[in-house]
Amino acid sequence: MPIPQPWTLGALAQACDARLEGDGSLPIRGVGTLEGAQPGDITFLTNPLYRHLLAQTRATAVILGVTEQQATTLPRLVSSNPYLCYARVAQSLFPPKEKPPGVHPSAVIAASAQVAPTAAIGPNVTLGENVRVGEHCIIEAGCVLGDEVQLGAAVHLYPRVVIYDQCVIGARCILHAGVVIGADGFGMARGPEGWVKIPQVGRVLVGADVEIGANTTVDRGAIEDTVIEEGVKLDNQIQVAHNCRIGARTVIAGCTGISGSTHIGRDCRIGGGVGLVGHLQICDGVTVSGFSLITKSITEAGVYTSSIPSQPHRVWMETLANLRALPKWIKTLKALEREWHNRKENSV
Amino acid sequence: MPIPQPWTLGALAQACDARLEGDGSLPIRGVGTLEGAQPGDITFLTNPLYRHLLAQTRATAVILGVTEQQATTLPRLVSSNPYLCYARVAQSLFPPKEKPPGVHPSAVIAASAQVAPTAAIGPNVTLGENVRVGEHCIIEAGCVLGDEVQLGAAVHLYPRVVIYDQCVIGARCILHAGVVIGADGFGMARGPEGWVKIPQVGRVLVGADVEIGANTTVDRGAIEDTVIEEGVKLDNQIQVAHNCRIGARTVIAGCTGISGSTHIGRDCRIGGGVGLVGHLQICDGVTVSGFSLITKSITEAGVYTSSIPSQPHRVWMETLANLRALPKWIKTLKALEREWHNRKENSV
Amino acid sequence: MPIPQPWTLGALAQACDARLEGDGSLPIRGVGTLEGAQPGDITFLTNPLYRHLLAQTRATAVILGVTEQQATTLPRLVSSNPYLCYARVAQSLFPPKEKPPGVHPSAVIAASAQVAPTAAIGPNVTLGENVRVGEHCIIEAGCVLGDEVQLGAAVHLYPRVVIYDQCVIGARCILHAGVVIGADGFGMARGPEGWVKIPQVGRVLVGADVEIGANTTVDRGAIEDTVIEEGVKLDNQIQVAHNCRIGARTVIAGCTGISGSTHIGRDCRIGGGVGLVGHLQICDGVTVSGFSLITKSITEAGVYTSSIPSQPHRVWMETLANLRALPKWIKTLKALEREWHNRKENSV
Repeated sequence: MPIPQPWTLGALAQACDARLEGDGSLPIRGVGTLEGAQPGDITFLTNPLYRHLLAQTRATAVILGVTEQQATTLPRLVSSNPYLCYARVAQSLFPPKEKPPGVHPSAVIAASAQVAPTAAIGPNVTLGENVRVGEHCIIEAGCVLGDEVQLGAAVHLYPRVVIYDQCVIGARCILHAGVVIGADGFGMARGPEGWVKIPQVGRVLVGADVEIGANTTVDRGAIEDTVIEEGVKLDNQIQVAHNCRIGARTVIAGCTGISGSTHIGRDCRIGGGVGLVGHLQICDGVTVSGFSLITKSITEAGVYTSSIPSQPHRVWMETLANLRALPKWIKTLKALEREWHNRKENSV
Repeated sequence: MPIPQPWTLGALAQACDARLEGDGSLPIRGVGTLEGAQPGDITFLTNPLYRHLLAQTRATAVILGVTEQQATTLPRLVSSNPYLCYARVAQSLFPPKEKPPGVHPSAVIAASAQVAPTAAIGPNVTLGENVRVGEHCIIEAGCVLGDEVQLGAAVHLYPRVVIYDQCVIGARCILHAGVVIGADGFGMARGPEGWVKIPQVGRVLVGADVEIGANTTVDRGAIEDTVIEEGVKLDNQIQVAHNCRIGARTVIAGCTGISGSTHIGRDCRIGGGVGLVGHLQICDGVTVSGFSLITKSITEAGVYTSSIPSQPHRVWMETLANLRALPKWIKTLKALEREWHNRKENSV
Repeated sequence: MPIPQPWTLGALAQACDARLEGDGSLPIRGVGTLEGAQPGDITFLTNPLYRHLLAQTRATAVILGVTEQQATTLPRLVSSNPYLCYARVAQSLFPPKEKPPGVHPSAVIAASAQVAPTAAIGPNVTLGENVRVGEHCIIEAGCVLGDEVQLGAAVHLYPRVVIYDQCVIGARCILHAGVVIGADGFGMARGPEGWVKIPQVGRVLVGADVEIGANTTVDRGAIEDTVIEEGVKLDNQIQVAHNCRIGARTVIAGCTGISGSTHIGRDCRIGGGVGLVGHLQICDGVTVSGFSLITKSITEAGVYTSSIPSQPHRVWMETLANLRALPKWIKTLKALEREWHNRKENSV
C-alpha cells in the first residue's frame, strides 16, 4: 500500500459528505477490509452479509449506511451511499501520484507537437507531428502517440499506451498500460486473388473521464469515427471494433468483445466475456450478464442473459446428450399425443 | 480523416476497374457513408437495404452494383463487386502513409543486423543480432525484434510490436501495435515438484500479405514451426497457440483462441470469440459462427455453430431450468409411452 | 531452431534420469517429432496412438515409457515419465539464452534503484525509485518497472513487460512480452454524476517459478493484494482481476478471465476461454473444461464443464429452437400425463 496522506476522521467526514459519529480528531492512516484493517485504518460495511465482522474488526473507524449505523460503537461515518463514501475517503487518503512536469530527455517529440508546460512526459515517449498534450497530462514511459493526436487536460497514460494518428482523448481520461487506441478496423473486400484492405480513415474519439483497462483495444472507424462517450469505464482486454459507439457512463467488464458498428446506450452494464455481434443498437440502461451473447438489437432496458453455468462433467455430458436428443423426444411426444387423441375420438 | 490525394472520378473508375456513368472530370476529395458523405465525397451502396438512402445522399458520386445502377442519377461507378471497388477507390484516395527512410538515432541496432537502405526505423526500436529488414519496411517506435528475425519487403510494424528470436515475417505484412510473435508456447511436463518447462524451439513463420490486429499473440512452435500462410487476416486480441497452422486467406475475427497444434484450412472464416480446442484439422472453406466452440476436426466445408443468443434474464433462467430438468421430463415421457403401449396391448 | 549444446545420448540419460538402451556415445544435436526428426535428433513417444510412427522415424534416439520400451530397436531412453524426460533433455540441449550482465546505456534507472551486478538490463528499460532487481535477472528491451517494484533472482522479463508500483515478482519467474502486472482493478462507486474511481492500493505478489504468457494482465488489489502463488503457469491473454488468489502449481490456458476476489486452489487445471465470476472459492485439484463458465464456488475436486461443441449450422439452429420451445413441450407432456391418469382412474 502506498503511504497515505494524513487525515483526521472529521476531515474525511467532510470530504465524503458523511455524518460523523465519534471523535473527529482521530488520525486515519490507511484503509483496510473489515477483517484485514489495522489500528489507524478506516474500513467500510456495504453488504449486510458481513455485518458480523464488525465485532472483530481492529479498524479505528467504519463507514456504513444509515440502516447499519447502530451496528457498531466504533467511531464511524454514516452515509446514504457508504460505498461512494469509501471511494471519496480512499481518494482523499491516496490522491493520484504526481509527476514533476517536464519532458524526459529521452522522449522524442516532433517539433510541431504542443505540450503544455505542466504536463509530464516520461522516458522514451514518442509524440508525432502536431500532437497536442493538455495541462497536467501524465504520459508515462514508452507511450507512442501518432500524428495529430489530441489529449485533453489531466489525461494519464500509463506506460506503453499507443494512440494512432488523429485520435482524440478527453480530459481526465486514464488509459492503462498496453492500451491501443485507433488501430485499423478489420475491414477488407474479397477480390479474385484474396482480401483487399479497406483503408480505415475514421478516428477514435474518447470523451472526458473515461478509464480504459490494460491491453484493451479500440479500433478507428472505417469512414466515420468510433466513439466512447464521457464517463465510460472499460476493464482490461476488451475489444471495441470499428464504428462502435459506447454511451456515457456505460461500464464493461474484462474480455468482452464488441463487433463493428454496434452502438451501446448510456448507463449500460456489460459483464465480462460477453460478445456483441455487429450492427446492433442497444438502448440505454441495459445490463448483460457475463459470458452472454447478444445477437439482436435491444430496445428495452433490463437484464439479458445466455450464460450457462458449469456442472460436474458427467452431469453436463448427460445434459448435453439430452439437448442433442431433443428432436427424438419431441417426435415421441408428438406421436403419443396423436395416438391418444385418435383413441379418445374412437372411444367416444 | 487524413487528407486524401486528389483524384477525378474518371481516374478512380480506372483504378477500381468500374464503369463510369457521368462526368469523369469531377474531383473527388474524400469518402463518406450514404448518410454522412459531404459534397466532394464518393460513397457506396453494397446492401440493397440501404437503397432508400441514395435519394438523400449529399455525395458527389456513388459506387454501386450492376443491379442497382439505375437507382440513382448521380455520377457513379458501376461494378460487379462494388465493395471491392470501394476498397480500391479508398486505397487510391488514402495511400499508406510514407515514412522517410533511415534509422532514428535512438534505435538500438545490433552491428550484425542488416537493414535495407529504404527501410524506416523509428525511435527506440531494438533490432537483435543478424536481424534482416527488407526494402521499404516501416518499423515504428518501440518495436523489439529478437535475434535472427527476418522481415520481407514492405513490412509495416506499428508501434510496440515484439517479435521473438528467429521468426520470419513475409512481404507486405502489417502487424498492429502490441502484437507479440513467437513467445513461448504453453508447454510443460508434470514433475514430482511441479511443472517443468519444455523449451519451445520452433519458430513462427508468417507468409506474405498477412495482417495481424492489435495485441494479438502467436506463439512459437514447441519443436516444429507455427505457420500463418499468405493472405491470412487476423483481427485484434486473437491467441494462436504453438504449432498451429492457419491456411491461406483465412480470416479470423477478434478475441478468438486457437489451441495448440490445430490446423485450419484455407479460405476459412472464423467468427469472433470462437474457441478451437487443440490437435484439430479444419478443412478448407469452413465458416465458424461467432462465439462457437469447435471440439472436433471438420472434414466438410460449411457453417458450424454452437452460439446461444441471450434472452431477457427471466426467460433465460426458465430455459436453463428446463434444460437441467430434461432427465426428469424424459423419464416421465418414457413411463407414459410404456404404460400406453402396455394398455394398448392389453386392450387388443 | 536455435543451435543446441553438444550432448551425448549417455549424458542426456543421466540428465533426465532415464535408463539408456544402446550406444551412449552417440552425439545428439537436436530434437524432432517422430515424423520430423532428422538424423542426429532425439525424439519421443508419449502417446501410444503414435507408436506406428516409430518404424519410420529418422531420429537417432527415442525417449519412451517403460511399457513401450520394446517398440523400437533404436537407441533409447526409457523412463517412467517420458514427457518429463523429454522436458529435461530439451532443457539440456537448449539452455536459456544468456545475456551479458550490465545496464544498457539507453536504460533509464532511478538513482535509488538497486540492480544486482549480474543482472542484464536491456535497451530503453525504465526502472522507478527504489526498484530492486535480483541477481541474474534479465530485463529485456522496453520494460517499465514502477517505483518500489521488486524482482527476485533470475527473473526473466521479455520485452515490453510493465509492472506497476510496489508489485513483487518471485525468483525465476518468466514474464512474456506485453504482460501488465498491477494495473488498477476495475473498482468504482456510482455517484450522482457518474462513476467515482476507487483507488486500488493493494499490490500484486507473484511467487517463485511462475510463468506468465504474452499480453496477460494481472490487476493490483483494491485494498489487499492480488496473489499468484509459486509454480503457477498462466498462458497468453489471461485476465486476472483484483484480489484474486491463484494457488500453487495451478495452470490456466489462454483467454481465460477471472473476476475479482475469486480464489482458485492449488494444482487446478483451468482450460482456455473459461470464465469465473467474482467472489468464488475453488478448492484444490479442480479441472475446468475449456470454454466453461463457473458461477458458484466449488468444494470438491473433479472436472467441471458447461462447454457446448458446435454442430453444422442447420442442426444447431434446430437444437436451439427445441431448447427455446421446451416450455411448450413440457406443457404438452404434463397435459397428456394428467389426461392419462384421469382416464385410468375413470376406467378403473
